[in-house]
Amino acid sequence: MILLYTDFGCTGPYLGQVRMVLLREAPAVPVVDLMCDAPSWSPRAAGALLAALAAELLPGDVCLAVVDPGVGTSRRPAIWRIDESWYVGPDNGLFDAVCRRGARVQGWEIGWRPPRCSASFHGRDLFAPVAARLALGQSPMGEPLGDASARLAPAELAEIIYIDHFGNAMTGLTAAAVRPEARLRVGARPLGHAGTFGEVPPGEPFWYENSLALIEIAANRASVAELLGLKIGVPVSWES
Amino acid sequence: MILLYTDFGCTGPYLGQVRMVLLREAPAVPVVDLMCDAPSWSPRAAGALLAALAAELLPGDVCLAVVDPGVGTSRRPAIWRIDESWYVGPDNGLFDAVCRRGARVQGWEIGWRPPRCSASFHGRDLFAPVAARLALGQSPMGEPLGDASARLAPAELAEIIYIDHFGNAMTGLTAAAVRPEARLRVGARPLGHAGTFGEVPPGEPFWYENSLALIEIAANRASVAELLGLKIGVPVSWES
Amino acid sequence: MILLYTDFGCTGPYLGQVRMVLLREAPAVPVVDLMCDAPSWSPRAAGALLAALAAELLPGDVCLAVVDPGVGTSRRPAIWRIDESWYVGPDNGLFDAVCRRGARVQGWEIGWRPPRCSASFHGRDLFAPVAARLALGQSPMGEPLGDASARLAPAELAEIIYIDHFGNAMTGLTAAAVRPEARLRVGARPLGHAGTFGEVPPGEPFWYENSLALIEIAANRASVAELLGLKIGVPVSWES
Repeated sequence: MILLYTDFGCTGPYLGQVRMVLLREAPAVPVVDLMCDAPSWSPRAAGALLAALAAELLPGDVCLAVVDPGVGTSRRPAIWRIDESWYVGPDNGLFDAVCRRGARVQGWEIGWRPPRCSASFHGRDLFAPVAARLALGQSPMGEPLGDASARLAPAELAEIIYIDHFGNAMTGLTAAAVRPEARLRVGARPLGHAGTFGEVPPGEPFWYENSLALIEIAANRASVAELLGLKIGVPVSWES
Repeated sequence: MILLYTDFGCTGPYLGQVRMVLLREAPAVPVVDLMCDAPSWSPRAAGALLAALAAELLPGDVCLAVVDPGVGTSRRPAIWRIDESWYVGPDNGLFDAVCRRGARVQGWEIGWRPPRCSASFHGRDLFAPVAARLALGQSPMGEPLGDASARLAPAELAEIIYIDHFGNAMTGLTAAAVRPEARLRVGARPLGHAGTFGEVPPGEPFWYENSLALIEIAANRASVAELLGLKIGVPVSWES
Repeated sequence: MILLYTDFGCTGPYLGQVRMVLLREAPAVPVVDLMCDAPSWSPRAAGALLAALAAELLPGDVCLAVVDPGVGTSRRPAIWRIDESWYVGPDNGLFDAVCRRGARVQGWEIGWRPPRCSASFHGRDLFAPVAARLALGQSPMGEPLGDASARLAPAELAEIIYIDHFGNAMTGLTAAAVRPEARLRVGARPLGHAGTFGEVPPGEPFWYENSLALIEIAANRASVAELLGLKIGVPVSWES
């Protein structure tokens, strides 16, 4: 299974062109669009969300992850093998949080080179063919990337990392970090805990453990991002 | 075939996670994203649109339908068998309109329970695995839901139920209810009938029978929702 | 392989219904959503973008292309065979630019007729079943469309043809038309060339050859469409 985790958006020709390459190169491998609106221009936030999603990957799965504001510059193209699953994408911090959560981590530069490669779309021209090759059991790896421990993300990221289409705001804090009795604080505003949406009155902001085991700020039947003016990168804190 | 009818949006990780579960549990069953922006927070409007789309389901098809503002509360998880097709989702009124149009209707609570279930994402943790099991011919049904006739939607829903990305506004009225000679009224504005977009001048609002056999308000090469300030739930009436 | 190129949007039931038809009619043929937000109401801009994407099609591929503001009027439904690939859609200019780039071009009206056809959704009722038939090796062609040279698009289209979700603005100019030394002009604003995003400071507009070999106007980590007020149809010029 190849999982696509990108900031390409669901519009435009980008995701479609990547799907076309994968289908040509590995027609028997199923492809799932895991997410197409990972936070652009923020590999750190995108990486924290990827680490939460990565919990569902199985051995042999290949995650093609592209949030790549530095495409065409000197950032290296990377392959990571983390707990028997594969990750392909730019070596710009995007995989740091997955590396931290992994028990067995190995990294390589990509060794394989495509016959032609555009300056701005390595997702299509380099990373997708490499993901196909990994899914087919081939070895497009080059030089080892060296000590992975040098590039670990913090275990907890106390800020907004994603806002979904309902206006709910995920943080990079895992549920393990914050006890349910705690009040979460975003800006000056303290927020109480709830188990799920239906427990609070409509329009009331709260925090809860979301289905990815991340702390999320939400409101029942309303956009909490609009209510509280939240954006990716806004810091959160808590008092127990 | 498994059809996905949700309000998850095309962004975010929700649809991707559901697709991943389906592919793991029923790898040989094709999955179609029928629609990902069903009206949130309005199972009645979402149900009227689902009933129109359901006309294309064949025996054995499974429709995974999730518009679930009450997730984690006491609303029951349901399986419906309607004219040899299966429907899985929350028992919150979402299936009332499909039930009304069906000739043979049976309902059950879901009997199967997942090994783990998040408080907020039953689409991924409960409904998707159950849809996979139904597609594979298994029986995840529990107790019968009792008399379906107690929960029938009205045959016609005289309000806006969906606004598409062109700005066209579908109503919950079937074409059978309104004769082409009729003038439709939304707010104070009377609207004439046309057969299709090209029959009216650009920018002119009109009503027509859309491709789902529903009455739809539209404008040629313009967003009628913007022109007339339409939203989901706005009532419509007609005079013949 | 069937490629979908439409203006249906990624929301709404339109793309899902087309996918359902294709899966029923040609279950073994893979389908790729190449793009779902082709410029609505502008077959000329949509055609220029389609021609750039068409470079990746292989013999036997079928491209189902629907940008069809005149649906239900007298515009003819068409099949084109261009360099061994198939194109199906409305004969409204959408395929003119692909025809120009093709070496071997043949066109037909669609001869096959569906058992029922809605007035407003020929994508689902006519074009999708015809695409399935072409992919299966059948011949749904009718009368030849006559001399294709009468309907050729200009080789270069000096205007904005698409704005993506990052706010980058593609033009209908191919990279062959403009030398890298040239300054591009959009409105009063002259723009310099760069090889890729990382070469210019954040927020600075520039032009570059994009991954489709089209001239594109962009800004590093910013929406150039917002910065410069760009829309589809805005003319561009250049001085070498």
